[in-house]
Amino acid sequence: MAKSVTGPEIERLIQLLARLPGLGPRSARRAALHLIKKKEQLLVPLAAAAGEAAEKVRVCATCGNVDTSDPCTLCSDPRREGGTLIVVEDVSDLWALERAGAMNCLYHVLGGTLSPLDGVGPEDLNIAPLVDRVMAEGSPIREVIIAVNATVEGQTTAHYIADQLAEAGVKISRLAHGVPVGGELDYLDEGTLTAALRSRSVF
Amino acid sequence: MAKSVTGPEIERLIQLLARLPGLGPRSARRAALHLIKKKEQLLVPLAAAAGEAAEKVRVCATCGNVDTSDPCTLCSDPRREGGTLIVVEDVSDLWALERAGAMNCLYHVLGGTLSPLDGVGPEDLNIAPLVDRVMAEGSPIREVIIAVNATVEGQTTAHYIADQLAEAGVKISRLAHGVPVGGELDYLDEGTLTAALRSRSVF
Repeated sequence: MAKSVTGPEIERLIQLLARLPGLGPRSARRAALHLIKKKEQLLVPLAAAAGEAAEKVRVCATCGNVDTSDPCTLCSDPRREGGTLIVVEDVSDLWALERAGAMNCLYHVLGGTLSPLDGVGPEDLNIAPLVDRVMAEGSPIREVIIAVNATVEGQTTAHYIADQLAEAGVKISRLAHGVPVGGELDYLDEGTLTAALRSRSVF
Repeated sequence: MAKSVTGPEIERLIQLLARLPGLGPRSARRAALHLIKKKEQLLVPLAAAAGEAAEKVRVCATCGNVDTSDPCTLCSDPRREGGTLIVVEDVSDLWALERAGAMNCLYHVLGGTLSPLDGVGPEDLNIAPLVDRVMAEGSPIREVIIAVNATVEGQTTAHYIADQLAEAGVKISRLAHGVPVGGELDYLDEGTLTAALRSRSVF
């Protein structure tokens, strides 16, 4: 806002909200006003929740997940099948795969992808701990599913990890390429269609 | 999330963020993760700012603006031209008009519009205090600009207020209808085009 029409505390709240992904300056103002109008139901609880999350949030030393306990909820769950490890770029990918609910296994969060142009090398990612984890004496891990994004950086990272784990004697797999469920062929790129044809299955 | 993959404090933060206008469940998760990753720069300051705003926020008893002081920044600004009062539905409209920066006058926030179907009558809005304010002994107000939304409810409210202020001996005006600046005629409705033609000005 060019001129300040409200108190500095409210301005500060707007500025911080505007830095959230998905909120611009205009929607941040709308969000702030909404919070203020619902002070008891929303603003006060949000302040408390943000404070409590800030105080308790931990990065799991085993897998790199974000949680309020270390080891995280997943790593400390005895019902998880520890023989399979899914390697993901980011915590958001872990959450997405958990929402799908297809597997009941453990994860390893890399924290990014290899990107020489941006100066991101293997030592900047959570790769060495992954190798240690898989190679550890008595490790139950039998399969590592490399579930990185289907981008150039993601695939480069996948190949690097596959190389590092070549001696580990575990199965290394990756996600299938193909037509998204509910997707229309007309809107898909040639690479996806080619991959979907190549990996076709018998009806 | 169907299954909880993270701590209850983080879940709570996601749930509260999802209640902000403009954020759905998916973008709330993204926002929460962004906050957590930038804990020191974003999550901790947001908790503090939300807490401070919740503690200090006031509704201005004079005009209905939301601020951290009462009277608000605008009402207590001696450089404001107190002869003109702009009547708006909501604080967000006041902020929008202040961003435009076209006037340097005072405001009156109604807190909604008359809506018999929703059971909103004159006594539910900040109308009686407006009449008192305009009619007050020694009031400097010479013009009341009714800047409500161009909806049926807004216009009904405008007419009601104009009636209530008929005896006050002040000029009562409303916003011009016309083509939005930068707007293309092709995308405008017939009502707007008709209004723009009727209120045409000489080149």
